[in-house]
Amino acid sequence: MLSKKGGCFMKGYALIGKNKTEWRDFSMPKINPYGAIIETKVVSPCTTDIHLLETGAVDNPSLIGKPMGHEMAGIVIEVGSEVKEFKVGDRVLVSATQANFRSLEAQAGMSKLADTNQYWMDDPERGGTFVEKYYLLDADMNLAHIPDSVTWEQAVMTPDMILTAFEGVREANIEFGDSVVFIGVGPVGLMGVQAAAIRGAGKIFAVGSRQVCFDVAKELGATDTIDYHDSDYVEEILKRNGGPVDRVVISSGTEDSLSIALKLVKRGGIVCNLASYFGHSSISIDLEAWAFGASDKTIVSPLCPGGRLLMDKMLKLIENGRIHPEKIITHKFYGMEKIEDAMQLFINRDRSLIKPVVFFD
Amino acid sequence: MLSKKGGCFMKGYALIGKNKTEWRDFSMPKINPYGAIIETKVVSPCTTDIHLLETGAVDNPSLIGKPMGHEMAGIVIEVGSEVKEFKVGDRVLVSATQANFRSLEAQAGMSKLADTNQYWMDDPERGGTFVEKYYLLDADMNLAHIPDSVTWEQAVMTPDMILTAFEGVREANIEFGDSVVFIGVGPVGLMGVQAAAIRGAGKIFAVGSRQVCFDVAKELGATDTIDYHDSDYVEEILKRNGGPVDRVVISSGTEDSLSIALKLVKRGGIVCNLASYFGHSSISIDLEAWAFGASDKTIVSPLCPGGRLLMDKMLKLIENGRIHPEKIITHKFYGMEKIEDAMQLFINRDRSLIKPVVFFD
Amino acid sequence: MLSKKGGCFMKGYALIGKNKTEWRDFSMPKINPYGAIIETKVVSPCTTDIHLLETGAVDNPSLIGKPMGHEMAGIVIEVGSEVKEFKVGDRVLVSATQANFRSLEAQAGMSKLADTNQYWMDDPERGGTFVEKYYLLDADMNLAHIPDSVTWEQAVMTPDMILTAFEGVREANIEFGDSVVFIGVGPVGLMGVQAAAIRGAGKIFAVGSRQVCFDVAKELGATDTIDYHDSDYVEEILKRNGGPVDRVVISSGTEDSLSIALKLVKRGGIVCNLASYFGHSSISIDLEAWAFGASDKTIVSPLCPGGRLLMDKMLKLIENGRIHPEKIITHKFYGMEKIEDAMQLFINRDRSLIKPVVFFD
Amino acid sequence: MLSKKGGCFMKGYALIGKNKTEWRDFSMPKINPYGAIIETKVVSPCTTDIHLLETGAVDNPSLIGKPMGHEMAGIVIEVGSEVKEFKVGDRVLVSATQANFRSLEAQAGMSKLADTNQYWMDDPERGGTFVEKYYLLDADMNLAHIPDSVTWEQAVMTPDMILTAFEGVREANIEFGDSVVFIGVGPVGLMGVQAAAIRGAGKIFAVGSRQVCFDVAKELGATDTIDYHDSDYVEEILKRNGGPVDRVVISSGTEDSLSIALKLVKRGGIVCNLASYFGHSSISIDLEAWAFGASDKTIVSPLCPGGRLLMDKMLKLIENGRIHPEKIITHKFYGMEKIEDAMQLFINRDRSLIKPVVFFD
Repeated sequence: MLSKKGGCFMKGYALIGKNKTEWRDFSMPKINPYGAIIETKVVSPCTTDIHLLETGAVDNPSLIGKPMGHEMAGIVIEVGSEVKEFKVGDRVLVSATQANFRSLEAQAGMSKLADTNQYWMDDPERGGTFVEKYYLLDADMNLAHIPDSVTWEQAVMTPDMILTAFEGVREANIEFGDSVVFIGVGPVGLMGVQAAAIRGAGKIFAVGSRQVCFDVAKELGATDTIDYHDSDYVEEILKRNGGPVDRVVISSGTEDSLSIALKLVKRGGIVCNLASYFGHSSISIDLEAWAFGASDKTIVSPLCPGGRLLMDKMLKLIENGRIHPEKIITHKFYGMEKIEDAMQLFINRDRSLIKPVVFFD
Repeated sequence: MLSKKGGCFMKGYALIGKNKTEWRDFSMPKINPYGAIIETKVVSPCTTDIHLLETGAVDNPSLIGKPMGHEMAGIVIEVGSEVKEFKVGDRVLVSATQANFRSLEAQAGMSKLADTNQYWMDDPERGGTFVEKYYLLDADMNLAHIPDSVTWEQAVMTPDMILTAFEGVREANIEFGDSVVFIGVGPVGLMGVQAAAIRGAGKIFAVGSRQVCFDVAKELGATDTIDYHDSDYVEEILKRNGGPVDRVVISSGTEDSLSIALKLVKRGGIVCNLASYFGHSSISIDLEAWAFGASDKTIVSPLCPGGRLLMDKMLKLIENGRIHPEKIITHKFYGMEKIEDAMQLFINRDRSLIKPVVFFD
Repeated sequence: MLSKKGGCFMKGYALIGKNKTEWRDFSMPKINPYGAIIETKVVSPCTTDIHLLETGAVDNPSLIGKPMGHEMAGIVIEVGSEVKEFKVGDRVLVSATQANFRSLEAQAGMSKLADTNQYWMDDPERGGTFVEKYYLLDADMNLAHIPDSVTWEQAVMTPDMILTAFEGVREANIEFGDSVVFIGVGPVGLMGVQAAAIRGAGKIFAVGSRQVCFDVAKELGATDTIDYHDSDYVEEILKRNGGPVDRVVISSGTEDSLSIALKLVKRGGIVCNLASYFGHSSISIDLEAWAFGASDKTIVSPLCPGGRLLMDKMLKLIENGRIHPEKIITHKFYGMEKIEDAMQLFINRDRSLIKPVVFFD
Repeated sequence: MLSKKGGCFMKGYALIGKNKTEWRDFSMPKINPYGAIIETKVVSPCTTDIHLLETGAVDNPSLIGKPMGHEMAGIVIEVGSEVKEFKVGDRVLVSATQANFRSLEAQAGMSKLADTNQYWMDDPERGGTFVEKYYLLDADMNLAHIPDSVTWEQAVMTPDMILTAFEGVREANIEFGDSVVFIGVGPVGLMGVQAAAIRGAGKIFAVGSRQVCFDVAKELGATDTIDYHDSDYVEEILKRNGGPVDRVVISSGTEDSLSIALKLVKRGGIVCNLASYFGHSSISIDLEAWAFGASDKTIVSPLCPGGRLLMDKMLKLIENGRIHPEKIITHKFYGMEKIEDAMQLFINRDRSLIKPVVFFD
């Protein structure tokens, strides 16, 4: 196990370059009056971390040398003088998107576009959540109290997995009884299945390829599981549904996904894209599926939102037993240094993996 | 048991006057090309029927002499020449609101306001659903196929109980994690609790007075049950919720309900009224609760909608195990003549009653 | 001039094949109880007609041998027995999209997808509006009374030009003060400019190439006109607007249009496509402009709607002086046979043409 | 004229008690890093000021002794170290509602409910805008640059008159061609008429009693003016409109207004209340007009919003010639001390008054 340093240093798991990481000591930040420092209790690596690792963060060179990670929960150990809602000792969830709410984007209801999360920012003093102690700029706006009955592992599924999926389902505007297809049932897709079920969907098709995901999809509300290796899976969905579906959510995408989604969805329906398409310059839309431009099919592409209010709402869903994010956790590690093992599962494309968590002690 | 007449007569349970009903023979209608005749399998009396009975339908004198009732399911026994989607032998649900979809109201998305349901219309040849054989004007628009896995008793909860409640919850526009209060947990209120739970509510407060309703409320998703006989129940809700709630749905109302709802709901929140206020000329709004006119509290008051599409969607929720309307049925009767016994439960204000159904054979 | 035939024949301008038309006699239809026959007073050819002519209607072979056209207004000369709202002698506007409102599509608020307009249907007895007398199936649903103060030429701009443009602007959901770009300022784009101006847009950029269109765009509310031949026109718009715009409406499109629109629109904004992309199998989306899938940019693609209610609303805008569709009419012809001359303007790509009308007498 | 003091004192027009005001010297505040000080150029008294004066601010005793006023524009003379978007010398508009955007209310899109405007706050150092120099807490969030082509008097109509009215019209969700009634055509009602016209309304009924208001209403887009002294004015509107209207906006209310509005609006329509009802404990809803609770009539009651983004949008409407707020200004005064004369117009219920402005030099 790594020795935990006291004083003004803390250990972090830093990205060094393409496929290279390193444990480094980082100096403790001096907090601003609105800030807080959180002792990390649990983190969860994500495919975005792997993407950054495997590309060496070519699109965000400022990330090199900084701690990785953006999903975490922990305990408040220091707060700035102006922090009103949080105090030392509180169990808290940290927002993955840490907006500057004093922004025109926030005034427009799009705070997520005013992200100041250090993970992404060009600020040498800031970094990700794979550290012993994590500093954030605006505690009152970007932390949330974890209710007693919510576990650490449930909590850490919230800032990215749940919020991305639930934002997608919200934007997909599912109505009571609607049929919905999820293309991709990794952790975000599975949380989407859960979201659709508690948003009132009727039939839910989970499109994937792994039995471990299908099993969880069924538990979370899918009515049908579909293997995309079957060459006629689009026709199979259309047949089982008795025609095109009301909504499609893409959480794992290839160059064909948008066109497939447009084929699956009915006119007047909505396609919600949650997938990232890196490494390509364009993606195409099949014109026949798009009715040559007059399809009345809407395409939305929401980014994960954040902030205290939304995290509070999601935590209420867990607290009241409406959703069960712990079901997507397939691997648990104990000890900060096990972040490496958790990352390795992604790198190996381990077919038993849905989502890992790493408890720091 | 009543003898069932063949040929051109059918038995019906008619409203004759204030607190007076009678079994009468009605002549069989001649159907139009778009119409259908349904052999009744199950009906359910409702508080609206009792209201009409106890007032002698003072506001709708044309109802006198006609069969009562508006909730039913049955089997198609005759269809007009232009009916495309239904055939003799089909198990079908009948819409309580039977819109004329060829209307400007329907073009405006408010087909429910172009209701041609015979129960309400000033047409001597038309009547309610408490008859052996029921005639409706437009089968393709106002019937729905009952899926094999949906029972008669589940189905008959759909046209009024489910559709009224789900319309209310839809108009209340509940967002993930929202806190919701239901004032009144009779059958519509309970279906509202269920609707809120599968629409993503967090905390759900069920306000009522009877244990039988509280028990079902808990099963359907309520987190808290509140007895309105407790003088401080409004404060109790505010305390448990940590402040005003996001949404309030009134399904059973008194002259105070709207003001109480406005006290309970937060600014920016929505109050949805599903209650009827007969016997009064006005209802008042507490101005302080309404912030003297600038509260940003929205008040909606939706009528039950109908039509095939919505019934199909609701039936999909039952078919896929999302909702459990059978839980609100407390009394089952067998034999058409038992409609009288079912009605008597309402008249007696039987405290064990939530919702009765009467199977015709 | 063509001789007008009485009795049971009427003259029509029929599509015969690729680049081939012919004047033919059509037998008068026998109307159904809900139908009506309209004596044509004015029609307007449209680019869709030209597309059908130049391709020989390859995608709709049933159109061959039928009258062309879908924009018209006229006088009622016969109504079916069940028609309630229209009588012989009424000045009426005919819906271009003639929905069957007795359909699940209409119940879903998408009546336009249940189009029974004879122009498009596989019914040998039905055809387009370039005829002396036009038969429609459902008068009460698909006609609208033309107010006295509205001229024939204003009226005939309604069923396609105005309704397509206004539906686009409605779906673009313009908010007060929003900046909007119109890519393409032909007749639909210009009506879009007008719609945006009376929907509360701030800055309106009209992107086109012809001075005649720019002049009308300015009159109808454009603040800036932009020539797309300027290689840096996208940058010019971004500069003048001080960054990306709130909304983009594409009414005239090439393979690049969708990507250009995504470059122009801000995150959180909406791109509305009204253009048709025939002759291609796919259209591409620039991934950088789409933020690799997480752009929060919404893409909508509405079809022209129809029906009496919407036409009534649009006619109210003309009647009350809110909009001035007559400004897009550049050419007027008198005499039914002049349809040929009007069509020729399109075929010649006449640079002075925005929209022609042909009065039948 | 009042002598303008330099140094650390500034003159202000303070509320002292019921019907009592006084010119006082206030010490200059020390600004925080996000704050700014604005030299006042123009203010406008409003009925809210008169209400506070005539009641002695019984409901807000902390206002006693402070400067009055909340509508102003001026020139930046000092900015805090963290202010990024404004500098000394800028012409700026000051938000009437000065939200703390670092709040859960703002995260919920309701920043107006987190108002920190000193006018309303229990902070002895803060006050209204009727001062030589005005201090606000968060310049980047609550100021807006006034475009060169926008005059001071146009600008000062924005923070309350325009924003209240436009918020009301936005919440009334007017669709193209809708008929709208404005009950009350004082300055907010008139700006509402303008808003409705540029939001796409068809017929606009302006209900009031003074010719000066009717004249401006016509200029701003009203199609019909209605005197509420005519005993049958409700019937007159219903007759002219051919039935109930789509939307009603109440900007000036009595105890009957809500019931009248519900009588005027169609089922499925919206009533938007912008009026304040002080001095009463409740307001009643006519149950017949509300269809006894199932009317599908929505009631909204929005407060005036604020913030830079919205002010920017409104200023763009002025800058681009879409709206003409200067038309509601009936009285102009020059010299700060003339605030008294402007206030007197309200006190006298001067029938020629719509809205006054006071230029400070």
